[in-house]
Amino acid sequence: MSAQHLWFSDLSRLVNPRSIVLVGASEKPDSIGGRTLENLTTFSEFKGDLYLVNPGRTEIHGRPCVASVSDLKQAPDLAILAVRADMVIQTLRDCGQLGVKFAIVFTSGFGETGEDGRAIEAEMRAIVASTGMRIYGPNCPGLNNMNARLGLTFSPAWRIDRRPGPIGVATQGGGLGRSFIQAMDRGVGVGLWCSGGNEADLEVSDYIHYMADAPDIEVIVTTLEGVRNGPRFMAAALHAARRGKPIVAIKVGKSEYGAKAAQSHTAAIAGSAEINSAVFRQLGIIEVDDIDELIDVASLLARRKPTGNEQLAVYSFSGGTAALASDMVGVAGLKLAEFAPQTLAALKDALPGFAAFSNPVDVTAEVLVNTEVSYATLKATASDPNTDLVLVPIPVEYGKTTAMLADSMVRVQAEEPGTPIVPVWMSDRTGEGQRKMIDGGLMPMRAVGNAVLAVRRMIEYGRWKANFDREWQPLADTAAASATQNATQSATANLSEARTKALLEAAGIATPRGEVASSATEAARAFRNVGNGKAVMKIVSAAITHKTDIGGVRLGIASDGAAMAAYEEIHANGMKACDVAAIEGVLVEPMLPGPFIEAVVGIHRDPVFGHVCTFGLGGVSIELFKDVSRRLLPLTPASARQMITETRCYELLKGYRGQQPFDIDALVDTLVRLSGFVAKHAGSIEELEINPLAVSPQGQGVTALDAVLSYQGTEPSTW
Amino acid sequence: MSAQHLWFSDLSRLVNPRSIVLVGASEKPDSIGGRTLENLTTFSEFKGDLYLVNPGRTEIHGRPCVASVSDLKQAPDLAILAVRADMVIQTLRDCGQLGVKFAIVFTSGFGETGEDGRAIEAEMRAIVASTGMRIYGPNCPGLNNMNARLGLTFSPAWRIDRRPGPIGVATQGGGLGRSFIQAMDRGVGVGLWCSGGNEADLEVSDYIHYMADAPDIEVIVTTLEGVRNGPRFMAAALHAARRGKPIVAIKVGKSEYGAKAAQSHTAAIAGSAEINSAVFRQLGIIEVDDIDELIDVASLLARRKPTGNEQLAVYSFSGGTAALASDMVGVAGLKLAEFAPQTLAALKDALPGFAAFSNPVDVTAEVLVNTEVSYATLKATASDPNTDLVLVPIPVEYGKTTAMLADSMVRVQAEEPGTPIVPVWMSDRTGEGQRKMIDGGLMPMRAVGNAVLAVRRMIEYGRWKANFDREWQPLADTAAASATQNATQSATANLSEARTKALLEAAGIATPRGEVASSATEAARAFRNVGNGKAVMKIVSAAITHKTDIGGVRLGIASDGAAMAAYEEIHANGMKACDVAAIEGVLVEPMLPGPFIEAVVGIHRDPVFGHVCTFGLGGVSIELFKDVSRRLLPLTPASARQMITETRCYELLKGYRGQQPFDIDALVDTLVRLSGFVAKHAGSIEELEINPLAVSPQGQGVTALDAVLSYQGTEPSTW
Repeated sequence: MSAQHLWFSDLSRLVNPRSIVLVGASEKPDSIGGRTLENLTTFSEFKGDLYLVNPGRTEIHGRPCVASVSDLKQAPDLAILAVRADMVIQTLRDCGQLGVKFAIVFTSGFGETGEDGRAIEAEMRAIVASTGMRIYGPNCPGLNNMNARLGLTFSPAWRIDRRPGPIGVATQGGGLGRSFIQAMDRGVGVGLWCSGGNEADLEVSDYIHYMADAPDIEVIVTTLEGVRNGPRFMAAALHAARRGKPIVAIKVGKSEYGAKAAQSHTAAIAGSAEINSAVFRQLGIIEVDDIDELIDVASLLARRKPTGNEQLAVYSFSGGTAALASDMVGVAGLKLAEFAPQTLAALKDALPGFAAFSNPVDVTAEVLVNTEVSYATLKATASDPNTDLVLVPIPVEYGKTTAMLADSMVRVQAEEPGTPIVPVWMSDRTGEGQRKMIDGGLMPMRAVGNAVLAVRRMIEYGRWKANFDREWQPLADTAAASATQNATQSATANLSEARTKALLEAAGIATPRGEVASSATEAARAFRNVGNGKAVMKIVSAAITHKTDIGGVRLGIASDGAAMAAYEEIHANGMKACDVAAIEGVLVEPMLPGPFIEAVVGIHRDPVFGHVCTFGLGGVSIELFKDVSRRLLPLTPASARQMITETRCYELLKGYRGQQPFDIDALVDTLVRLSGFVAKHAGSIEELEINPLAVSPQGQGVTALDAVLSYQGTEPSTW
Repeated sequence: MSAQHLWFSDLSRLVNPRSIVLVGASEKPDSIGGRTLENLTTFSEFKGDLYLVNPGRTEIHGRPCVASVSDLKQAPDLAILAVRADMVIQTLRDCGQLGVKFAIVFTSGFGETGEDGRAIEAEMRAIVASTGMRIYGPNCPGLNNMNARLGLTFSPAWRIDRRPGPIGVATQGGGLGRSFIQAMDRGVGVGLWCSGGNEADLEVSDYIHYMADAPDIEVIVTTLEGVRNGPRFMAAALHAARRGKPIVAIKVGKSEYGAKAAQSHTAAIAGSAEINSAVFRQLGIIEVDDIDELIDVASLLARRKPTGNEQLAVYSFSGGTAALASDMVGVAGLKLAEFAPQTLAALKDALPGFAAFSNPVDVTAEVLVNTEVSYATLKATASDPNTDLVLVPIPVEYGKTTAMLADSMVRVQAEEPGTPIVPVWMSDRTGEGQRKMIDGGLMPMRAVGNAVLAVRRMIEYGRWKANFDREWQPLADTAAASATQNATQSATANLSEARTKALLEAAGIATPRGEVASSATEAARAFRNVGNGKAVMKIVSAAITHKTDIGGVRLGIASDGAAMAAYEEIHANGMKACDVAAIEGVLVEPMLPGPFIEAVVGIHRDPVFGHVCTFGLGGVSIELFKDVSRRLLPLTPASARQMITETRCYELLKGYRGQQPFDIDALVDTLVRLSGFVAKHAGSIEELEINPLAVSPQGQGVTALDAVLSYQGTEPSTW
């Protein structure tokens, strides 16, 4: 990562061009140029000017055609390149010179083939830099603007795959994107699909940023094989969040297999999955694991912008299914609405004795053959003041019964537009009922578990959003800060514990008040100075990372004599481990009186997103249970506190089972100071770990008992 | 739970009756009796005798009809009751007297309506007890024997819902069962579906036991709202396991919502979800969370009996999809096969330069339009010696391309029958390709995540099975032992720590060699006797459960004088907490020298399944991270060892990061001895907890530092 610009071009004229030139236009119906031409003319509602370029034709299907882009009298907004790989660079140059604003390059055979191809993509970027024309692609299927009925694509699927809607899809490879598009067959509409292929210039972040401003897009969906530019991605995501548009994302690379496969597919580096997920969480990006989850969450968000406090009703005609769905609602930590008295009365009125009146509502299959009963009961359920969303799991295709249920659902949904009625068509059998739900805009999901998971993610987004609206500025600072950082360029070096602690003290972070001794006599004096009766002594050397292993640490020093003996011993062991010149001395520190809890705080520079802070408690919590939380810097008091509460070990800090609470306020303060310290030296600090950071009882502060810092560039003493 | 029989009736004549009487036969096509008659005659291939009973008819559709069951000359194997609720008991009596072997009762209005209904079900059981006739139902849709084309059901769906196959389905409520049946629309065949409704007599366990022996059933599926009889369920499951037939189960009741809903639906008590899941794991029952998972796992097991060592290949025509699928394979902890040289050569031969030759195989969409290429590459992939299963994620319906791919898949599957080719039809769009996969028996799944999860569960079952084949006997003992136990009938009482430890010592479990002192002088003598310089002293009273809280514990006693003072203090505190008569004295024990790890072992009686052992390490591992493992008693050395290895804290026990290992062998021995001790006193012991159980370094044993036992019935001293 090098210092990055965070501005974004306005892509309006890419997505809605007033004029287009198709280079490589053809009359052969099965060629790329021919299919694109047909998509633009026969299958689009494009009202602007369309120019055609083909050196071998003067007209195609009655439209004039020129030999070269240079022959055009004026620059169109957009050029579409359906030309051979060896023609691409010259064509782009011509377009750029003419003043074309955007170019879509379908052609394959560049970065995905290896080193030579990547060199040509660098040439494309040079054209961007010199002309200002932005490039979409290469190696891509084009851009589908469903809401404007404009297909800037060679795909024959454009003719059928265009159900408009409020969802914007931004992908790298095309396969997963089209998988999403085909969810139109269960009623999910997509307004715009950008699939940028190799991303020589424009990238997913640009499309997300555009969609954040686009008035016809409400929910943004993306599939990522790698994030090329972390800060720009963050900036785009924040822009979408400020515009109130949730992003749902799937990111490959959580396992070695996935990372390797993604790299071989798009040459994208997957980055660390843990860091990636932490950043997504922080930015409110809803991360999902599979395409069906992507569809479910996006379609749900397209129906309701969540508050984070949603309560559910479950409505079914099968008792077992109602029980199963309620069970999953409970396991997911969601809440079933408690019905108001009038709802219970209305249900009791409509239903026979053996049906279940309360939530979950089990109306039984016999009842549902009467449309008025299903309408009345569903209406009561959906209009209950505590119900925010109605889950309707349908275990079987049941002919007339399910068709009638569908009618009632569509009718009630129209009357209660604020309460999404979410059917789950569990069966593998399709039928009239399912069709009616799709046509009625209810976008049925495919499994109860999927639906519950989607609702949970929607609600969690609502909670994040409520918080974000108060706290977006620090997050924007995060993106801006990351953008100014430089990637590790030179070799890194370590700073000794003593020097690191001195820097921490200067930054307002408490350490034991220690002294570095250069002789046994000095050690004895230091022992008296730091005083409290018991001391710890440690070798001080940037060259020694594992002090204990080399015999460089002695605990429980309780007398002058012990201090002198320990000095000799530690110094001798140190000289065995490294050059004497690298030994700064022996650190004598007072032992911190207990009780305290040992926390671990680490900050390291992620190559994609910049400095990330990791927090957890020491021992088995981190090592066996991976109980940590992560945040991009800078931290605010609120975000630092939230980091702490996100770990399970927070229970211990706040006073477990009636035991004393520890000093969480001081811990928060220390995390924020650390964040500020690293931000100040962002260009140099590669890694900083305090382990342990002792958290004493409430009011008694925290103390950095050990710390190590690695840096690049100028030596820390000259800061 | 009361003492239970573990025998099972042979249900052959219920499932395949030679003769049937339909009571309540009717000619009205929409009545229960009319639909059942039509199902038996027009839509079944029943070759046996069919008798009809209806007091108002002498013939129906040309078949003779008698007024009452008593009019029959001989007893048919099976009676089907399609009569009013108030007629059911008399009809059952008549059937039982005549010598009918089985009765299916469709009729509703019994246990599910409340107390009165449950009383009538008790009458049904009395008829079973007095006549030997077994009852299926009431409140059920009947029994579907698809493999014999025999529909003992009133459901109009029987006419279409009968794709035979090797899967047996045993349910309580009918809705979820039919949801499974409709998976026939993606090629999943069910041979037999038993849906026993209220289970007045026969229950899911009986159907599972029958299916275990049925030659046409290979995989058993069940949905449970509650396990009525734990030992019989265990016995049936073990029988299936011995027959090599996996059970896939979904059990409602993991959350309060689910437990409550299940209870209101079938009056079943859900039981503890954790115990239930632990028992399922122990019995090799594959527990899933949703119906689609049930379908996926069962359909996969119907195709391959796993070894537990399966390796996968991923084959796709979309690079992003291949990366996503590989990623999920890795996250699930599964292995991608490393292809043999001849496979790589064959792939390279068939594919162009930009396709991916290794695993995952990305053949690219352009290639797939050539059937010979898709055949050759898929063939190479499936016939690779390291490939046990091929996952083919298909992101989009792609017309001819996906249809041709389907052709190749079906062809290769026929040639490589031992290597399941598992398509994932990810798209919401159906198409010719999907249809061909279904017709070709490939049973496509609906999402990559579903498929990977199903494969993981299949492989885990294979591992369990490999183990089970060596160790089924102890598990059978478990079921038998549980069956002989009585549920808690009288109030429980606690035993004091000192008495509990004496019992443990007698059972061969080490405790600190302590003495109970009744005076300060005795305490001083005891201090010298137990000797090692440091002692711990604790109040001994069955009436005091929280010794520390009342000031009943003193640590670090290091002299006679300290022991005497501690005695007085502890005894005085004890008298404040309980009656002096309840104080047995003060226990003086040597303090165990460190280092040791504190484990916790608890055994309690689960009301459904009997005694269950819970193991974990103390502190945050159990309290914050719930890091425990559970097993039904009795434990064997192998199962005890496995319990230990299942916890994450096993890492600490075996020597974390080069530190010393602790005495796992002694821990295993102690768990087995505890199990034997509890089994010996199974009728009395309600709960036994050793906390902490100190695990010393390897070779130095384990020691029960504190223990508490609660019992019912006769006092433990008289054992």
